[in-house]
Amino acid sequence: MKEPFYNFIKTLQDTITQKLERIDGQAVFKEDRWVREEGGGGFSRVIENGAVFEKGGVNISAVHGPLPPAMQAYFKVGDLDFYATGLSLVIHPLNPMVPTVHANFRYFEMYDKAAKVVDSWFGGGLDLTPYYLFEEDALHFHTVCKAVCDRHAVASYAAFKEKCDSYFHNTHRGEARGVGGLFYDYCKATPAHSMQDWLDFQMDMASHFLDAYVPIVEKRKTLPSNAAQREWQEIRRGRYVEFNLVHDKGTLFGLKTNGRIESILMSLPPRVQWRYDHHPVAGSEEAKLVHILENPVNWL
Amino acid sequence: MKEPFYNFIKTLQDTITQKLERIDGQAVFKEDRWVREEGGGGFSRVIENGAVFEKGGVNISAVHGPLPPAMQAYFKVGDLDFYATGLSLVIHPLNPMVPTVHANFRYFEMYDKAAKVVDSWFGGGLDLTPYYLFEEDALHFHTVCKAVCDRHAVASYAAFKEKCDSYFHNTHRGEARGVGGLFYDYCKATPAHSMQDWLDFQMDMASHFLDAYVPIVEKRKTLPSNAAQREWQEIRRGRYVEFNLVHDKGTLFGLKTNGRIESILMSLPPRVQWRYDHHPVAGSEEAKLVHILENPVNWL
Repeated sequence: MKEPFYNFIKTLQDTITQKLERIDGQAVFKEDRWVREEGGGGFSRVIENGAVFEKGGVNISAVHGPLPPAMQAYFKVGDLDFYATGLSLVIHPLNPMVPTVHANFRYFEMYDKAAKVVDSWFGGGLDLTPYYLFEEDALHFHTVCKAVCDRHAVASYAAFKEKCDSYFHNTHRGEARGVGGLFYDYCKATPAHSMQDWLDFQMDMASHFLDAYVPIVEKRKTLPSNAAQREWQEIRRGRYVEFNLVHDKGTLFGLKTNGRIESILMSLPPRVQWRYDHHPVAGSEEAKLVHILENPVNWL
Repeated sequence: MKEPFYNFIKTLQDTITQKLERIDGQAVFKEDRWVREEGGGGFSRVIENGAVFEKGGVNISAVHGPLPPAMQAYFKVGDLDFYATGLSLVIHPLNPMVPTVHANFRYFEMYDKAAKVVDSWFGGGLDLTPYYLFEEDALHFHTVCKAVCDRHAVASYAAFKEKCDSYFHNTHRGEARGVGGLFYDYCKATPAHSMQDWLDFQMDMASHFLDAYVPIVEKRKTLPSNAAQREWQEIRRGRYVEFNLVHDKGTLFGLKTNGRIESILMSLPPRVQWRYDHHPVAGSEEAKLVHILENPVNWL
């Protein structure tokens, strides 16, 4: 699985960054190659100060070696070796009418000391975080997600949508990070389904990320916005930071296992505000968004 | 202990907020009283958009009731009751030449089901986070801290300074949050020292917070600063957010035990930036600060 999947995400990184650069028309991705001391490394591509994208990263990595103690404890396994590869992206647009998006497509293998694979799984998903809610955008995003799931017997839109809502939840605020999407993990072979089935789903879903997101960007990127709407975007971005630093397992894992800090924290928004006890005016567009985040809905 | 200490911090909150309002000359603290469902509550006072202080909070609370399960696990104790009171403050000045400051002075008691006190301790400290390093400011802050410690046989400036350096450390960045100060916890009665000795130290230290911080504010608040220095301040504030949300035990504890979110997160700076892989120019004032944060020094 690991070679075809790595080759796939290597090509996908090009496809996604080229498309986003064409949409932006001003900024380009800067690539940093990094090497992990214990084995492997990655290619981080970051765009900043674009006409459409204020900050974003589309990273791939493939790391391997002895499973770090923190990961042994997390997975409740002994002294194994591991291989992990994936593509991870977060895009923070400039215009508050364009939602932030996150996606991750990963594959994990664990080996015993005789180099035999003892466990392997796929994981990933994609989710949308608007600052102003256009219901048709949420509907479009979820429609693309569902269409891919429906093509694969291994995948369940309903189950993965539910997992997304419960995972990307700022429990301390009692609200969702955004309007959801898909989240799946520990996707393994079963008597009914092979790893190849999961690989097929994973590649199909990842290949349709741009279809889920780009039409929304194209539709919203030239909408007018004012300073108050920009402030609201920056305040909401604070919630994004809170989720990523307090709750997100991937981020905390990276920070505690000596990952490449700048690649992990590329997910943090470029400009953020925290106001004390800020609440939107009742009946406003801002209040409408918060209401939906506090009460996740089924979009389809 | 608990009544005299609570009365002390109640008065201290007034003293500190009045003094900071006089310095600011424009904004005033807004007070919110909150009640904790399980017992107790607090008074949060927050200042925003001042001439000198961009955002700051000076909060007191006194909460009690059954020890929440998360705290039982943390303290490795059974089903006890608790009482906790303290003053907590974080001040984020507008001018990047004025450092951010944090202080906390707290008292904790645990009871068995017969309401007998089974454990009690003081904890707290104060620390300074500059954006531009004026060595004389760090020296002044540490001098006030040491002078108070030296008056009390229970207190050790050297030990508490060292604890501050190791606690307020962004391990994932390999740098200190700021230039330190004091940190102490689990300060209990011993054969040589009574709880009254600790109370005396705690009140003396808290009473000298303004002496440690205000002269620095007065000296730096009218210094000129430019947009690039302001950007540097906002980038460094990102590190402050990272520490508070990833590492700070008090913050995480509050978020996970249903504390009052807005009082806990008042510590987060008003405007923050994250740039990808940002490094100051070699030899600059910004680089000088980072060097000191990576290599904490003994100021005295």
